[in-house]
Amino acid sequence: MSAYCMRVRIALAEKGVQYEYKQEDLDHKSPLLLQMNPVHKKIPVLIHHGKPICESNIIVQYIDETWHGVNSLPLLPSDPYLRAQARFWADFVDKKIYEGGRKIRATTGEDQEVAKKEYIESLKVLEVQLGEKPYLTGESFGFADIALIPLSNWFYSLNKIWNMKIEEECPKLAAWVKRCMERESVSNTLPDPHKFHDGFMEKLNKKSH
Amino acid sequence: MSAYCMRVRIALAEKGVQYEYKQEDLDHKSPLLLQMNPVHKKIPVLIHHGKPICESNIIVQYIDETWHGVNSLPLLPSDPYLRAQARFWADFVDKKIYEGGRKIRATTGEDQEVAKKEYIESLKVLEVQLGEKPYLTGESFGFADIALIPLSNWFYSLNKIWNMKIEEECPKLAAWVKRCMERESVSNTLPDPHKFHDGFMEKLNKKSH
Repeated sequence: MSAYCMRVRIALAEKGVQYEYKQEDLDHKSPLLLQMNPVHKKIPVLIHHGKPICESNIIVQYIDETWHGVNSLPLLPSDPYLRAQARFWADFVDKKIYEGGRKIRATTGEDQEVAKKEYIESLKVLEVQLGEKPYLTGESFGFADIALIPLSNWFYSLNKIWNMKIEEECPKLAAWVKRCMERESVSNTLPDPHKFHDGFMEKLNKKSH
Repeated sequence: MSAYCMRVRIALAEKGVQYEYKQEDLDHKSPLLLQMNPVHKKIPVLIHHGKPICESNIIVQYIDETWHGVNSLPLLPSDPYLRAQARFWADFVDKKIYEGGRKIRATTGEDQEVAKKEYIESLKVLEVQLGEKPYLTGESFGFADIALIPLSNWFYSLNKIWNMKIEEECPKLAAWVKRCMERESVSNTLPDPHKFHDGFMEKLNKKSH
């Protein structure tokens, strides 16, 4: 269910890295998780040569700097300005799309209406940034795309529960989601929207009881 | 007053970069700011070759990747694991120290007591990370230090207004502040704590009226 974990799995798949995958029960965190991420006690954690790397966007950069894909371009370009752009949009996704989605879930009534409006506005900023490009920062699938694509799983649920017409409001972004889903790294990682929705509803119901 | 801007100015000074400095009146943002950072409309923005770079930690990485200091080491090390560590602690500063300070200012009563306690706890995490090292991630002044040092300006005000004994609670961190202040890049950038405190009080009073 964790979009943050999906980022890491997409990046590892892009690089063709084989790895052992351990799931965590967040209600009963394992001693390994507490030992490897004592500061935040959160997933994902990548353990490489016995050493932990934490925080999804930091892990993705580590993966990009450590492994070179056989048939893929680097996830971050080499030009400093383009690197800054990629980081800017990945950061935007965290601050506006991830936090924005959390806000919709955490609010009710008028506050929720405001949160929904803000969420769509943030997606429209990405729609403009995308423009006619195939990917968020240019011709190739990269860091910013990896930050955002796991959050597309929300779109189905946001429509189903709160009637948010994201595909209609942001057609370029909808096409971008389809384009990303053509990559094995993405389609093998993202859960089926219906299954994600069931998990999403379960979480919502848990919260309200 | 902006700790985010101080980060950028410290990094530029570390690299010996000459630049033109434009101050912003945030109650009346300039057309230049709105044009250069249309997404967040926030400071700092670094304009290089006519192109804007936004978000302080992203700007500092851009500076590190673009200019090489005459007598200074890179702000981020070349080893991917050490780079991930530097990014982790810079991110921790944003999430826990910057946001934690904001929370103290934004709350009152019992909520404020909780915020104060959490702030000290976060500083103690940094105290442990510092250990016997001269700087947050090792032997040389770098990315994580630049992220944190501008926030040390708060310590004086937090003590004066809310009686928070940060120097006593975190003696290693207090020694680290002094060590950082021995660098011209830092001492030339950080305002005098008394002046900062006056500005801080002005902001607090503005808010409560």
